[in-house]
Amino acid sequence: MAFLTDYGQYDGFVAACHGVAARIAPDLRVIDVTHAVPPQDIRRGAVVLAQTVPYLPPSVVVGVVDPGVGSERRGIAVAAGDHVLIGPDNGLLPWAADVVGGISEAVELAAPEYRLGGDALTFHGRDIFAPTAAHVAAGVPLSALGPALSVGSVNRLPEPRVRVRPGTLETEVHSVDRFGNVELAGRADDLVAAGISAGGHVDVVIESTPDGPGRQISGLAVGRIFADVSPGELIVYVDSYGHVALAVNQGDAAAQLMVEPGNDLTLTASGR
Amino acid sequence: MAFLTDYGQYDGFVAACHGVAARIAPDLRVIDVTHAVPPQDIRRGAVVLAQTVPYLPPSVVVGVVDPGVGSERRGIAVAAGDHVLIGPDNGLLPWAADVVGGISEAVELAAPEYRLGGDALTFHGRDIFAPTAAHVAAGVPLSALGPALSVGSVNRLPEPRVRVRPGTLETEVHSVDRFGNVELAGRADDLVAAGISAGGHVDVVIESTPDGPGRQISGLAVGRIFADVSPGELIVYVDSYGHVALAVNQGDAAAQLMVEPGNDLTLTASGR
Amino acid sequence: MAFLTDYGQYDGFVAACHGVAARIAPDLRVIDVTHAVPPQDIRRGAVVLAQTVPYLPPSVVVGVVDPGVGSERRGIAVAAGDHVLIGPDNGLLPWAADVVGGISEAVELAAPEYRLGGDALTFHGRDIFAPTAAHVAAGVPLSALGPALSVGSVNRLPEPRVRVRPGTLETEVHSVDRFGNVELAGRADDLVAAGISAGGHVDVVIESTPDGPGRQISGLAVGRIFADVSPGELIVYVDSYGHVALAVNQGDAAAQLMVEPGNDLTLTASGR
Repeated sequence: MAFLTDYGQYDGFVAACHGVAARIAPDLRVIDVTHAVPPQDIRRGAVVLAQTVPYLPPSVVVGVVDPGVGSERRGIAVAAGDHVLIGPDNGLLPWAADVVGGISEAVELAAPEYRLGGDALTFHGRDIFAPTAAHVAAGVPLSALGPALSVGSVNRLPEPRVRVRPGTLETEVHSVDRFGNVELAGRADDLVAAGISAGGHVDVVIESTPDGPGRQISGLAVGRIFADVSPGELIVYVDSYGHVALAVNQGDAAAQLMVEPGNDLTLTASGR
Repeated sequence: MAFLTDYGQYDGFVAACHGVAARIAPDLRVIDVTHAVPPQDIRRGAVVLAQTVPYLPPSVVVGVVDPGVGSERRGIAVAAGDHVLIGPDNGLLPWAADVVGGISEAVELAAPEYRLGGDALTFHGRDIFAPTAAHVAAGVPLSALGPALSVGSVNRLPEPRVRVRPGTLETEVHSVDRFGNVELAGRADDLVAAGISAGGHVDVVIESTPDGPGRQISGLAVGRIFADVSPGELIVYVDSYGHVALAVNQGDAAAQLMVEPGNDLTLTASGR
Repeated sequence: MAFLTDYGQYDGFVAACHGVAARIAPDLRVIDVTHAVPPQDIRRGAVVLAQTVPYLPPSVVVGVVDPGVGSERRGIAVAAGDHVLIGPDNGLLPWAADVVGGISEAVELAAPEYRLGGDALTFHGRDIFAPTAAHVAAGVPLSALGPALSVGSVNRLPEPRVRVRPGTLETEVHSVDRFGNVELAGRADDLVAAGISAGGHVDVVIESTPDGPGRQISGLAVGRIFADVSPGELIVYVDSYGHVALAVNQGDAAAQLMVEPGNDLTLTASGR
């Protein structure tokens, strides 16, 4: 089982889920993806799941970022490649499913026998998702969990903006990591399509936001590794997930650029 | 083994304990409950242990929040239900024992053969509690660990304040979680006994503290799930541990109410 | 496998490494040492590894604090005692090797068949170190990983300052832990050699730094456990790793003394 939530590690929430799963499937191994998704930030959870799932062994993957817990939103299980993803039907899971082959089967979590028992009101990770995952890991087929759903009925987040023109990539900040590296929604292919490649330079325009005015940084090096620029300098590169990204060698690009996920950027090939 | 401490995860303290246990019992699985208990906050550790232990498989549970490490305070092991709890005799363990059936046996940790060896002075998690737990998980009976203690001699924290009168529940903040949800010491039964139920409303009086004056919030909805109120609104509900709690739908109730564990509150049924 | 990085737990970096290792060696157990090393702080990583490795079962230990990732710096595997340590050749590993018997064999990581595949540019933890470790745990000998290196060619950090004279120990802050306890580079033996022992007192001179002037604290008790002084008082003691340390009983010595790793201190035996 792999496990991603916004539960944090201050409380015993994650451990309660581990415990419930271990009571059902004592030999089940759990890889904690992260529990530091900011509360209710579905997009951040979706990004980290999609980055990580391709590197897992065939797994039951539980994702819980769930502002609508207990309300009418459905719980779902979806099969994708060698994985089964389980969580709320609020957009958290499909991006991860996409990168391992797309959703091949989807069901609504309805069968009461795979829940913990009792009213499940405000803690579906413990009461529904973790026990369901342990049962699936132990061999229960998706079809036993509840009624089949059409793949098209599974809720998706809006696709992030990526627009390629000759010499230009318009996109948005997709993710900022622990080091302050700024991953864009555009991918290596988009950079190639825009005619931008390692060894060249780009100008970067950051669009204005409610928090601040637009601004431009000129002549950024396009490279392959952080050490292609001096410590403290900005670089554009393709990160280890295949996305276009901005970093500061041994520094924090997000802090230096004052950007956050969702901010719009345009990269334009420059003479220098 | 389950493991709760105030060691944090900045250092290698938790890993050293895992390592010591793995050398004794190589196949022992460990569920980390949390290591983010604020330093020396025994009550916080006791609350999280009591919330989590009922969801674990039968386990040896190690708890270490230990301001008196190395002094005359005893180390103990207590049996409760299917669990054995091990840690300092400073009140950390009994609340967890209570929720899984109460302490049925207690011993003082005295036998040197289940310790790591060397002087155990300032790191009893590594030198005494983790190796003892691994030995117990491997089959060593409690009676081998040291002299039996009477259950009544095990130190307990003061019971939190809960007083029910018709239409009124007087209690205190028991715990604040990662989301800012405010768990009270009073339980679902107390709310019923006070005649307060979902669908009604309450007035909440927060008593003055050294940090601020008393205040009142009127007409809070009593509900079952966060979505029973609009985003940003306060709700009174029974949380997933069976305690009365206050939350803000998709927000942080503790920050909004400016309360912390130990603060006294009175809930009174209101017309609206 | 044991695993220490500066990756943090906000992203899925650690989980991707766990996943890659689990695909190669499904039964491999992983003990996470810490992932909270401050970004690029090689010395902090080296200290925590050296503190923790002696308490692990025979393990493959992966350490990744790697400001030069992707550049010409080598990846290495070194055998030391019952352990194999794997990571960048930047000084991170040798201190841990020293405390378990010293480096007996060293190789450069060059063989492509133990890597994940693809270009390994900016995430060597996932692409080189974790898969190599899993292969070594599964039985691949060091000699298969790449060309042998002389032990003397492995890069080491500068040794921290420790100078003993009669009645005086000159040393530097080696590490500050989660509780604010201040571990010095000097060890128990150095304290004995300086003629300072529990029950006595010392004067502590903190040298000036770019951030503040020098200062002196007189008459600190030398003790064995925190409770040898009253809550809130400073104590000098030998910590659980055998180093001389300063603590405040139930308080934060680093905050009170305003010191950080690398600051120079002198302890001098005093009449009181």
